[in-house]
Amino acid sequence: MQKRDIIKAIGEKILESRKILISSHLRPDGDSIGTGLALFHLFRKMGKYVDFINVDKTPFPFTRLPGAHEIIIGEIKDYDYDMALLLECSEEGRSGHKNIKRFFTINIDHHHTTDLYANINWIDPSASAVGEMVFDLISELKVEFDKTISTNLYAAIASDTGAFRFSNTTAKSLEVCAFLAKNGADPYEVSKLIFDTYSYQKVKLLGLVLSTLNVEPESGIAHISMPKKFLDELGLTEVDTEDIISLVRSIEGVNIVIFVKEVDRGKYRISLRSKGDINSGRIAELHGGGGHFHAAGFSLEGDYETVLKNALQIVKESIVKKK
Amino acid sequence: MQKRDIIKAIGEKILESRKILISSHLRPDGDSIGTGLALFHLFRKMGKYVDFINVDKTPFPFTRLPGAHEIIIGEIKDYDYDMALLLECSEEGRSGHKNIKRFFTINIDHHHTTDLYANINWIDPSASAVGEMVFDLISELKVEFDKTISTNLYAAIASDTGAFRFSNTTAKSLEVCAFLAKNGADPYEVSKLIFDTYSYQKVKLLGLVLSTLNVEPESGIAHISMPKKFLDELGLTEVDTEDIISLVRSIEGVNIVIFVKEVDRGKYRISLRSKGDINSGRIAELHGGGGHFHAAGFSLEGDYETVLKNALQIVKESIVKKK
Repeated sequence: MQKRDIIKAIGEKILESRKILISSHLRPDGDSIGTGLALFHLFRKMGKYVDFINVDKTPFPFTRLPGAHEIIIGEIKDYDYDMALLLECSEEGRSGHKNIKRFFTINIDHHHTTDLYANINWIDPSASAVGEMVFDLISELKVEFDKTISTNLYAAIASDTGAFRFSNTTAKSLEVCAFLAKNGADPYEVSKLIFDTYSYQKVKLLGLVLSTLNVEPESGIAHISMPKKFLDELGLTEVDTEDIISLVRSIEGVNIVIFVKEVDRGKYRISLRSKGDINSGRIAELHGGGGHFHAAGFSLEGDYETVLKNALQIVKESIVKKK
Repeated sequence: MQKRDIIKAIGEKILESRKILISSHLRPDGDSIGTGLALFHLFRKMGKYVDFINVDKTPFPFTRLPGAHEIIIGEIKDYDYDMALLLECSEEGRSGHKNIKRFFTINIDHHHTTDLYANINWIDPSASAVGEMVFDLISELKVEFDKTISTNLYAAIASDTGAFRFSNTTAKSLEVCAFLAKNGADPYEVSKLIFDTYSYQKVKLLGLVLSTLNVEPESGIAHISMPKKFLDELGLTEVDTEDIISLVRSIEGVNIVIFVKEVDRGKYRISLRSKGDINSGRIAELHGGGGHFHAAGFSLEGDYETVLKNALQIVKESIVKKK
């Protein structure tokens, strides 16, 4: 089916449905929450009965999007929905819900996927976000874009494109957001909502970890460290360190980052983030770990000084061997 | 004159000119450099003789914009330009050049200004950037937007809107950039060029300064400190600390930031950044300094501990008095 026909088929199914379920994936992100909320408001505006049910709770700051408090967290109760709309679920299980195929299912995703498990599958890897795809769907349904719908879709696209800075940003992403800005979304307000939401603890952690930064100019190896007490004292989890290692990787001249994290006394997790043709996954595998080409990790034991020295040695040898 | 007529008049002057001078303001920014370069390439494409002369050198990372190496740094030599186009110069002197009014001058600015010193003044405070204004001018001239022109204009707008996140971002900014993206600008490549340009020294300084961060939750007062040796050891200047204080101000719950910078032994510069109705300028004035409502500074002398205590005291009292 052509894109045009799929959108038309989805539109028709929506029009004939009275009770609609929306769900996004486990550990939902800004794109799936914003897009789900836009659809939630749209369906309600169209006079449908609609539930937006996610297994995992909405992460901050997306809890601040218009209508986020109406998302139900938990499993789906017995209810005879006419259709279930799944956002960014590459397979049924990604929603966290069981037996979701007992409903008529629509699968909307902008990631490459081969599991066409739903009754209608709309997969478009050229879209920057599902928000961009759903924009086309709402246009097809000819429902007016109001402030609530526009704000949520804008947030979805801005979030997934990292404020139009990531490689998935296209002319269309900008064009859609220009339209949404004309129809109620305030670019500044949305950006404040989803980006300028630093907590004291996260900024402090950033400072503490970055103050351990060291870069070897010859090899392009950077390393940062985090004693367990940093996280404990600030009440943070490892998730909160993802931005830090990305920031270090984007330093001019850095080819690979070694992040030494103390997980327990004498136990360290070594996270690697590399650029270009340095295969972090391979390095990690050789030392009992794993991961992807540019992001991987493995474990080491010993005192901090020795662990750091060994991690540096391991990475240095791998890079030299490659050459 | 209506906007439409001004653009038309500027277009006509350009068409009849053979030798054109472009200049932007002292300490030029991304908007004035990107826009100036777009015009530079445009004029050359139109077969004009064109010089882009700035008194101050192009700051990194805008040195990486297409054609930046062709900008001449210094004073204007004796030459009989048919017109001089000034970008974001609120008055003649802002260009740093002398006697520029000996040429036919065109003044293009998106800031509020009352000094209409040029032969043609095009002031549009509703535009996010002069890049956005010059987009309309190039459209008027009906010259094709190629990769070089589009990339420079995109960089100008993305830079001045902070990747479409600042309050000056409009539907038009996004719309213009969507058009530019369709005509050769690569949103990801431009963003990498102008935003992801961290140096080891700047990231290290960020870490060192942020590791001194402290926030008083009751008052919303945050403070950070920087001993002179941080800058000296890293070979940086105070300009490089601007992002840090902004980051701290955007922490949830922070109302005012006190940045204690050692300028010399026993001499400290206290920078303030506030939000909402806290008048930093007033606080600074009362202590021999000055500045704007939300950004100001003053000086204190003594040992570090005493200076920090005094700065905190001064800010705390000002906030209490206000209430």
